[in-house]
Amino acid sequence: MTINRRFLLARRPIGTPVPEDFSLVEAPVPQAMDGSFVVRNRYVSLDPAQRGWMDDLPSYMPPIKLGDPVRATTVGQVHSSTNPDFMPGDWVLGLNGIEDYSLVAPGGFTQRIDISHSPSPSYFLSGMGAVGLTGYFGLTEVGKPRRGETVLVSGAAGAVGSVVGQIAKIKECRTIGIAGGAVKCRRLVTDYHFDVAIDYRGKSVAALTVEIAAAAPVGVDIVFENVGGGILDAALMNLAPKARIILCGLISEYNSPEKSGARNIWQLIVKQGTMHGFLIKDYVPRFAEGAAQIARWVGEGRMRIDEDIVDGIENAYSAFMGLFSGGNRGKLILRIA
Amino acid sequence: MTINRRFLLARRPIGTPVPEDFSLVEAPVPQAMDGSFVVRNRYVSLDPAQRGWMDDLPSYMPPIKLGDPVRATTVGQVHSSTNPDFMPGDWVLGLNGIEDYSLVAPGGFTQRIDISHSPSPSYFLSGMGAVGLTGYFGLTEVGKPRRGETVLVSGAAGAVGSVVGQIAKIKECRTIGIAGGAVKCRRLVTDYHFDVAIDYRGKSVAALTVEIAAAAPVGVDIVFENVGGGILDAALMNLAPKARIILCGLISEYNSPEKSGARNIWQLIVKQGTMHGFLIKDYVPRFAEGAAQIARWVGEGRMRIDEDIVDGIENAYSAFMGLFSGGNRGKLILRIA
Repeated sequence: MTINRRFLLARRPIGTPVPEDFSLVEAPVPQAMDGSFVVRNRYVSLDPAQRGWMDDLPSYMPPIKLGDPVRATTVGQVHSSTNPDFMPGDWVLGLNGIEDYSLVAPGGFTQRIDISHSPSPSYFLSGMGAVGLTGYFGLTEVGKPRRGETVLVSGAAGAVGSVVGQIAKIKECRTIGIAGGAVKCRRLVTDYHFDVAIDYRGKSVAALTVEIAAAAPVGVDIVFENVGGGILDAALMNLAPKARIILCGLISEYNSPEKSGARNIWQLIVKQGTMHGFLIKDYVPRFAEGAAQIARWVGEGRMRIDEDIVDGIENAYSAFMGLFSGGNRGKLILRIA
Repeated sequence: MTINRRFLLARRPIGTPVPEDFSLVEAPVPQAMDGSFVVRNRYVSLDPAQRGWMDDLPSYMPPIKLGDPVRATTVGQVHSSTNPDFMPGDWVLGLNGIEDYSLVAPGGFTQRIDISHSPSPSYFLSGMGAVGLTGYFGLTEVGKPRRGETVLVSGAAGAVGSVVGQIAKIKECRTIGIAGGAVKCRRLVTDYHFDVAIDYRGKSVAALTVEIAAAAPVGVDIVFENVGGGILDAALMNLAPKARIILCGLISEYNSPEKSGARNIWQLIVKQGTMHGFLIKDYVPRFAEGAAQIARWVGEGRMRIDEDIVDGIENAYSAFMGLFSGGNRGKLILRIA
């Protein structure tokens, strides 16, 4: 292949992204020079956070520039290199873009990965990558679960939530998962060993509040929040004293120009609770430790990692939008080679 | 006096309390027996938290029962006693009610106080009491201010906020205070040494956001939040990385049946911020230490404590409502003897 297909951000989405916000173009394969190298991207991570990067708002990294490929974590192989640390054929993980080939400047985040102990190179985008480790470090380091505590997880059938629920169970907590629809709720119990599954669909905040209260009569000690909106409001009404909320994602509002936030934060005061905005970036130096722990649990049959792999860069838009409709099963990954 | 005037909660307010939600009745002075004692209340603390206690909602203490006096922290003197630890004439601080005389069962929160080093016994309801110590422990123990950091205080001319601003300045922080109206804003600078005063009145969230950004170009490290609503939303848009929000009060929504909460909590994620619901109760064992520190600063002329004293139990309702209109100056206290 001598062309580079690139999935560009053509304009900033207002609310829900539409196909016209992007363009798929063909360009020459970039040339490595002066210490840079070119990666042939093979697996592309599709994550809710990418929606935030499309907005021109204050965030933890600059917005994606218009005309640039949509920023994404990818796993691929070095195609050509002028950098002695990266040889053609090496498998690498990095923050690149949704494109066949990415030119990587020296000194960036890209790292070589050893795929020999991984069921698939894509695992570095799911259980053994930032997503699985978000669940692992978020729950263990911020939530600090103690045996017998109750852990509530929203987006519980999702890539992060399913990891959190399984680790909470390994830590001998009682686990309550919230997901959308009967199929996902069944999987919460059968696949991820949640003690209770709550289907949020069609329910008011008041109804959800009552349902969580029934599942956690003395309150929830840890909330691992991936969704926000009414689900977070209902969780806030069920805090145990000194509850910890790990605020990991708010996918329910990412496509809303008006942010819904949380109405019931007054419960943080009366329960002396804390809400921790969580990003994985501080834990990058501990990735190897976390990935090894997850690989061990997977190997022991105590944890499963599900991936939902979509083929073809031409399906990037439709696959990405699946994140927001709740249709995908497991970590969503685009395979482009 | 042989009668006990009592300011009772007659029904639960819906939204803003109206006079008919309360009744002022006369009753016999209670009799001490079996280890109890009777306190002649002299100073009554009027606090926003009392509004929450009037609602039948999950909180850190049970709601005030209908027909009971409105719960309040008071300073008074023992009137009669069957408890050897409390002798007639002793000055005491306790959680009682808005009434001339309170019957105190043994084993409660009531403690004797030494008023000899205090400018007035009422100081145990302001700077040397729960209010001043909320500012002291909330800022120092939760916020952990470091020299050179920026501290944003809402309700900055209020009883808690004015203490927080002054302590932040003593800790060599840059201080930004938000208050309502030109008079209060002038006092923020002249009386409480804030570096910047922002008047929130008549301003949109967007305008407040810009004004805070101008005062804190690299963001706010600590937010001491007493107000909530649009002020909190604007603060959230100006967080420095790893900002700490001390959620102490949300007075803007206490009279709203629908809680407004916070829309911009997504900024907690992108800035890795934390929001800490704060109650003073865990620090009760350290009250003497905190009160001594505040008394020292007051004595050194580095801090001032303002009290707004209203006379007469018959003015309890109108005085209490002043908390929500922003009209009072300093800690609001009702003097009833």
